[in-house]
Amino acid sequence: MTQQRNSQSRIERDSMGDREISSSVYYGIQTVRATENFPISGIRPLPTYVDACILIKKATAIVNGELGCIPQDISQAIIQAADEVLASKFRDQFVVDVYQAGAGTSHHMNVNEVLANRALEILGDEKGNYKRVSPNDHVNYGQSTNDVIPTAIRIGGLLALSRTLHPALEGAIATLEAKAAEFQDIVRSGRTHMQDAVPVRLGENFRAWAHILTEHQNRIYTASGDLMVLGLGGSAAGTGLNTHPQYRARVVATLAELINSPLQPASHLMAAMQSMAPFVNVSGALRNLAQDLVKISHDLRLMDSGPKTGLKEIQLPPVQPGSSIMPGKYNPVMAEMTSMVCFQVMGYDSAIALAAQAGQLELNVMMPLIAYNLIHSIEILGNTIAALTQRCIQGITANRERCLAYAESSLALVTALNTHIGYLNAAAVAKESLETGKSLRQIVLEKGLMSEAELAKVLNLEQMSQILPLE
Amino acid sequence: MTQQRNSQSRIERDSMGDREISSSVYYGIQTVRATENFPISGIRPLPTYVDACILIKKATAIVNGELGCIPQDISQAIIQAADEVLASKFRDQFVVDVYQAGAGTSHHMNVNEVLANRALEILGDEKGNYKRVSPNDHVNYGQSTNDVIPTAIRIGGLLALSRTLHPALEGAIATLEAKAAEFQDIVRSGRTHMQDAVPVRLGENFRAWAHILTEHQNRIYTASGDLMVLGLGGSAAGTGLNTHPQYRARVVATLAELINSPLQPASHLMAAMQSMAPFVNVSGALRNLAQDLVKISHDLRLMDSGPKTGLKEIQLPPVQPGSSIMPGKYNPVMAEMTSMVCFQVMGYDSAIALAAQAGQLELNVMMPLIAYNLIHSIEILGNTIAALTQRCIQGITANRERCLAYAESSLALVTALNTHIGYLNAAAVAKESLETGKSLRQIVLEKGLMSEAELAKVLNLEQMSQILPLE
Amino acid sequence: MTQQRNSQSRIERDSMGDREISSSVYYGIQTVRATENFPISGIRPLPTYVDACILIKKATAIVNGELGCIPQDISQAIIQAADEVLASKFRDQFVVDVYQAGAGTSHHMNVNEVLANRALEILGDEKGNYKRVSPNDHVNYGQSTNDVIPTAIRIGGLLALSRTLHPALEGAIATLEAKAAEFQDIVRSGRTHMQDAVPVRLGENFRAWAHILTEHQNRIYTASGDLMVLGLGGSAAGTGLNTHPQYRARVVATLAELINSPLQPASHLMAAMQSMAPFVNVSGALRNLAQDLVKISHDLRLMDSGPKTGLKEIQLPPVQPGSSIMPGKYNPVMAEMTSMVCFQVMGYDSAIALAAQAGQLELNVMMPLIAYNLIHSIEILGNTIAALTQRCIQGITANRERCLAYAESSLALVTALNTHIGYLNAAAVAKESLETGKSLRQIVLEKGLMSEAELAKVLNLEQMSQILPLE
Amino acid sequence: MTQQRNSQSRIERDSMGDREISSSVYYGIQTVRATENFPISGIRPLPTYVDACILIKKATAIVNGELGCIPQDISQAIIQAADEVLASKFRDQFVVDVYQAGAGTSHHMNVNEVLANRALEILGDEKGNYKRVSPNDHVNYGQSTNDVIPTAIRIGGLLALSRTLHPALEGAIATLEAKAAEFQDIVRSGRTHMQDAVPVRLGENFRAWAHILTEHQNRIYTASGDLMVLGLGGSAAGTGLNTHPQYRARVVATLAELINSPLQPASHLMAAMQSMAPFVNVSGALRNLAQDLVKISHDLRLMDSGPKTGLKEIQLPPVQPGSSIMPGKYNPVMAEMTSMVCFQVMGYDSAIALAAQAGQLELNVMMPLIAYNLIHSIEILGNTIAALTQRCIQGITANRERCLAYAESSLALVTALNTHIGYLNAAAVAKESLETGKSLRQIVLEKGLMSEAELAKVLNLEQMSQILPLE
Repeated sequence: MTQQRNSQSRIERDSMGDREISSSVYYGIQTVRATENFPISGIRPLPTYVDACILIKKATAIVNGELGCIPQDISQAIIQAADEVLASKFRDQFVVDVYQAGAGTSHHMNVNEVLANRALEILGDEKGNYKRVSPNDHVNYGQSTNDVIPTAIRIGGLLALSRTLHPALEGAIATLEAKAAEFQDIVRSGRTHMQDAVPVRLGENFRAWAHILTEHQNRIYTASGDLMVLGLGGSAAGTGLNTHPQYRARVVATLAELINSPLQPASHLMAAMQSMAPFVNVSGALRNLAQDLVKISHDLRLMDSGPKTGLKEIQLPPVQPGSSIMPGKYNPVMAEMTSMVCFQVMGYDSAIALAAQAGQLELNVMMPLIAYNLIHSIEILGNTIAALTQRCIQGITANRERCLAYAESSLALVTALNTHIGYLNAAAVAKESLETGKSLRQIVLEKGLMSEAELAKVLNLEQMSQILPLE
Repeated sequence: MTQQRNSQSRIERDSMGDREISSSVYYGIQTVRATENFPISGIRPLPTYVDACILIKKATAIVNGELGCIPQDISQAIIQAADEVLASKFRDQFVVDVYQAGAGTSHHMNVNEVLANRALEILGDEKGNYKRVSPNDHVNYGQSTNDVIPTAIRIGGLLALSRTLHPALEGAIATLEAKAAEFQDIVRSGRTHMQDAVPVRLGENFRAWAHILTEHQNRIYTASGDLMVLGLGGSAAGTGLNTHPQYRARVVATLAELINSPLQPASHLMAAMQSMAPFVNVSGALRNLAQDLVKISHDLRLMDSGPKTGLKEIQLPPVQPGSSIMPGKYNPVMAEMTSMVCFQVMGYDSAIALAAQAGQLELNVMMPLIAYNLIHSIEILGNTIAALTQRCIQGITANRERCLAYAESSLALVTALNTHIGYLNAAAVAKESLETGKSLRQIVLEKGLMSEAELAKVLNLEQMSQILPLE
Repeated sequence: MTQQRNSQSRIERDSMGDREISSSVYYGIQTVRATENFPISGIRPLPTYVDACILIKKATAIVNGELGCIPQDISQAIIQAADEVLASKFRDQFVVDVYQAGAGTSHHMNVNEVLANRALEILGDEKGNYKRVSPNDHVNYGQSTNDVIPTAIRIGGLLALSRTLHPALEGAIATLEAKAAEFQDIVRSGRTHMQDAVPVRLGENFRAWAHILTEHQNRIYTASGDLMVLGLGGSAAGTGLNTHPQYRARVVATLAELINSPLQPASHLMAAMQSMAPFVNVSGALRNLAQDLVKISHDLRLMDSGPKTGLKEIQLPPVQPGSSIMPGKYNPVMAEMTSMVCFQVMGYDSAIALAAQAGQLELNVMMPLIAYNLIHSIEILGNTIAALTQRCIQGITANRERCLAYAESSLALVTALNTHIGYLNAAAVAKESLETGKSLRQIVLEKGLMSEAELAKVLNLEQMSQILPLE
Repeated sequence: MTQQRNSQSRIERDSMGDREISSSVYYGIQTVRATENFPISGIRPLPTYVDACILIKKATAIVNGELGCIPQDISQAIIQAADEVLASKFRDQFVVDVYQAGAGTSHHMNVNEVLANRALEILGDEKGNYKRVSPNDHVNYGQSTNDVIPTAIRIGGLLALSRTLHPALEGAIATLEAKAAEFQDIVRSGRTHMQDAVPVRLGENFRAWAHILTEHQNRIYTASGDLMVLGLGGSAAGTGLNTHPQYRARVVATLAELINSPLQPASHLMAAMQSMAPFVNVSGALRNLAQDLVKISHDLRLMDSGPKTGLKEIQLPPVQPGSSIMPGKYNPVMAEMTSMVCFQVMGYDSAIALAAQAGQLELNVMMPLIAYNLIHSIEILGNTIAALTQRCIQGITANRERCLAYAESSLALVTALNTHIGYLNAAAVAKESLETGKSLRQIVLEKGLMSEAELAKVLNLEQMSQILPLE
């Protein structure tokens, strides 16, 4: 199938003809064609995505070897080659642009070719001797891009979540809870519609954020259950053509062991191939998290605003000078960066949504886009949350006096009088206070609406700002 | 507070001044101001959303009455008024544009005013006598727009799901499964990348769709769990100010009984008020379903294409003439309508996402937009799925001969030879077949690659197209 | 074709069979089928869209009558019927849901049927006698949904722009400019990153907004040029089949006269039918405007925040009480409503984008969605801007003292020293001021970095806050 | 300010303290802090964006030198340093993650530091001696991130358009027009709603696409006019503080000369700083193009579908084997890749839209996201169009016989009979033909509806498929 040309190159052949390939590279003719066809972004596959593909190839080599579908020595050599890549070798051999052939055939063949050629070397053979070890007939035995790539996105997503996003979320939640405890007794004014509202505790703001992030983490866990259901074994169109009868169950079990995750075979192989819903589900959960992170980042920026012309209820730790022209300025850069990453995650999610609705019949060919956007989103979101936690949230300090002063001045304290003097009387008190500058207290007493003792009991900020427990 | 002007009108007063109000209407001064302030779309609140608000007011009246926070006779009158609205009376009294005051205060006060005025009538009093029954002090006792409206969106979403979308999905799934059984033995050619692929069963295409919709229904059920966690009882900023200590637990339990759903009090009231994540979660699940529905609708249109110039593997039932100029043309109108509704649901979801990230501090004032988009999306999606099921899917017939002819002609049948003659030999056979028009069978025999008996066994379409069972 | 059944109903027939139709209605059999097929949203066609369709029918009747394609008396009757609808008669006869048959055939036939039946009445004949006046052969002569509906969206868009959005924008710009003049000499602190920045003039903030809206209006005008290029005359697939050779040029000229707009015939009829780019262009311009309006609304809410716990640099006029629980609270409801409408417009734009990419071959069948979303977006945006202008911007007052106090306290005043003492020295001054509370002025003098006279000249807020003119 | 530590490192100081910096690097302390703060994506600034920043710095150095604001020798050294970077030197010195400090201060300071340190070397001084050449006081004289970065996005966008997208579009349009001429006389069946429609010419399909792309190019040119209006000179908040009175006009003129583009100074500096509308405008034009490209790519895939089970009206050139399992399969990979890139561009546009609405007061800090997404979108879209043109469109061949056969069989030919026998008679003919298999011609003659001669004249496919010229 191939013949050695000289020490610098080899000739490979596919159904389109011959190509000279540098001897030094592990990828082959299909990869070369793909690099020529797709000079688009220069962005190469994410390492986590390569890991996922290689893990699948390792699992299939194990099972196909055990079932006698491919010879033992070849199976072993492929497994060894896979382990080497997993140990970060040959990473520069994955060279196809992320924007490539529909369904990801180009990247998939890149993986098959690298493993075949490295297996050949391990077996003491020469790269390119595909009669001995074929990218298609051995590395890809019983497989198709149609079932490998949807599986690789699932595995890549799970790896990225467990390596990056979940640890970051756990760190953020723990830090927010520590801050909640630290700020528990600081009373500040609530603001709704950006207008004075009833008093709350600064600590509860941080606790609310911890709570919100915890719920997002739960939603992400739930959504990622979809990634644990694999259509691997469906081969070309989801029928399982060319696979050994025991392959499907065994390959999923093997992969589950390799990544230590409770993976299961899909209950309908064709459905698992056609529908991108699992990825949309996870991306949707990321987007949801991103939206609340934008809100939290914005709150941080708002409460930190100042130092002289804003609210300055809290102080974010300075991490770098803020301006090329305004000396001594420090900006909330970690919170700003967080918002940008979140907007990008929402943008990647939009692209995933577009890709997901564009499937046709037995396949959705837009998978390479989904693979990149989903895994990249998980990773940049994880990195962002970790950086925000360490370089911003951990160092936040509170301005207790400023918080209390706002709380005491808030016109909305009058709300506590509702059940005593009625809404309309209370409104009249608030109006007079705003117009005259007199305190709410003074006006109520002047009007004889309540006694001083009653007022003292009702207008207790400490108590008003506590969240009523659930009885 | 108000004084009867004449038989045609009454005077109401709020903190901004007096207004003459027609005696015939049940809404009051704040509603009138809102209708003047927001002449935007002419779209009034969705009936399901009104139901949700009224159910909350009924539950709060029950509990506040039981706890002695408001007098028994007033509580009873409010409950009766609520029941009348739930029985579809006074529906023309909910008149504020869906685009209105932040957080939904205008619609909320419209609800409070209608119930107060109707309660006054029930008590034999005159509309507008708010000293007796006040929209704020009685109907709204212990409540705030800040906790009522997020709760109303949750209840409205749950009502819309159970009334409209879930029944529609169940119908669609059952119909698709019936069609799957009907078409089980019809062999057709798979198509991946819109190119010839290996054979599949038409029934399995329908079964895959049933499977995909089932999984979406499960995702929607899971997401809607978020809607069952209520921040009601948080009142103004999530502290529960002005509520009875037992109110929070009791009002959630009462509401749970009223709508027969396992509602629970939120574990952090401020979080429940600030974060729109529950709505984004449900909207995301709708969007996910919508995307697969676009794909399924497109598949239906593609497989039905023709009658003479397309694939025509299946025939959608004609439901109306298709063209104002081309006589005798029938278009796949139900599938087309489905795609449009799905795109709209995706658009509404984009707007929800924008609204969700725009919260500030203790509140997200963009809730009226979220309320409308979420509930409307559920309802139009439900109506669409029901119509598609009844007027399209149920009447689909298959073109067995056309399907088989495509399957037999597909070049991808050569795939079954891979494990016998290798990928590259198989590719050469396919190439020759395409170029010469000879059958794959003939070429394999001519080249002596396999025997006739082997070939017959391998190129068995019935068998190739069956999904390999999980062993 | 039809036979009178009794005084209450008539029988109509199409290629699917006979239907009994109430005598009272002007629509016919195809409309009835469509109402049965599409019980989706209950939303009926926008009046502006009906106007657009009727104007097209009037123009075609004029031209087809002049060219002798249809009899003079029928042409005249159709024209009169069209004029009656334009004068707001028979508006309840347009009854097909906005989510309907692909390309809008159902609504189009609704229009054809109403005009045919009204024309029959005008001619003294009975509704339903389509042998005399046919919805297809006369009202629709030389036309197809394929060319009428893309034209109707264009005309509808132009009508909505000129009736609603452009006047609203002009009003907003004029009001902002008046406010700019009013506030020209008020110095306030700039804030970048929500942190103290160099001083600016409040009037310039309003002028910047006027400027930004002016540029958006220009972009919308530019984009709407796309709407003036019509594919009318393309009939079924853009070839012009069944049209008179002079029809295309004349019908566009006639329509141009009817709406007083420089309409032109498309230079490639098939392109005009396939591509939704003109609508995406206009929708994109609306979205762009909406995004800046969100930003402006947010700025208004931020500068108005308070009264006691926020910036309160400006005061938005109160238009309604703000809270059902917090007495005396006024919220920036007009600005909040504006943000919600803008988010919705962005959501509608997302749906338009999805629809636009879903065209196939000679047609994009998603046009009904585009029609509704585009025209509705223009109208709610126009209504919103008008309401915001009248009920918010016009009544804004400034808090001159508060503005100046912020400006004087801003740490960023130190920026003006850069060119005198260098960035790093200036930063040290700022740092010391923040830490010690001493004024920038005091520290500079203490350190002997500049003389008092120099400082007075440099730290002149009036001058610093003026925009340097272009020389 | 800095002191040489040893030969391997130097010490730099900013307002936060001292840092040891490797002697080998040209960036300084602020860049180092930023790389530590933002370990997010690993994606470094796009070369085109670096070019844009450097060009601005060159222009400002020229003008500030001429105006005497900075010493001549320093100005010259900065200019030389800038020229070296423009000649692709020191490109590895731009190291800040694309997700970074709001407004882009980090990247901006990276640029200032590299130029300052290289200028120092040119002047024979040591890196880090900022007393001689300061990143802030000299390289950044009269500038702020607030005016430099919005200008850099404008310049970067213009560079990317002229270098990448416009040439690609011109190539695509020319190729499509050549194909239109080649295929002009090939008659094929139109398909609307994926159903048989009236005949068209294959060449006109290609011409329509050329036309559509031409209009998109025009829209992009129009939108990019916004990029030519520069707020440079506004410095910190748009007032022009710290700039020479003649600077603003001269720097824009100088930059215009450098990039040979008719740049103009903004008419309102604060508006130019606050509003991201110019970028949304260009991004919206890209999105619009992307949507039609998705549609065109989809049409190519549909018309190429087969070889045995699809339409196969055209043949896309094979560029690589299509499947890892199905031998001999060729997929429309260039069209598929195009769709993916277009979806991504639409996703980037969504993120830009989110960023654009998030500005506050005098600044929008989300600019780094906008910079990356806008320039990257232009470049990947340009590269994609060029690849699609060269590797797909140029090699398309037509299947003339298949096209004609479809056209002759289409039921919609009956449309041509409308004006002769009426719509309902024509519909009956079509129905009978579909049911009986008889030709339209035969049925018309049998029914005596038209004579053979009339029919021959009317059912002339050559003529029917020609687009009627504009008279």
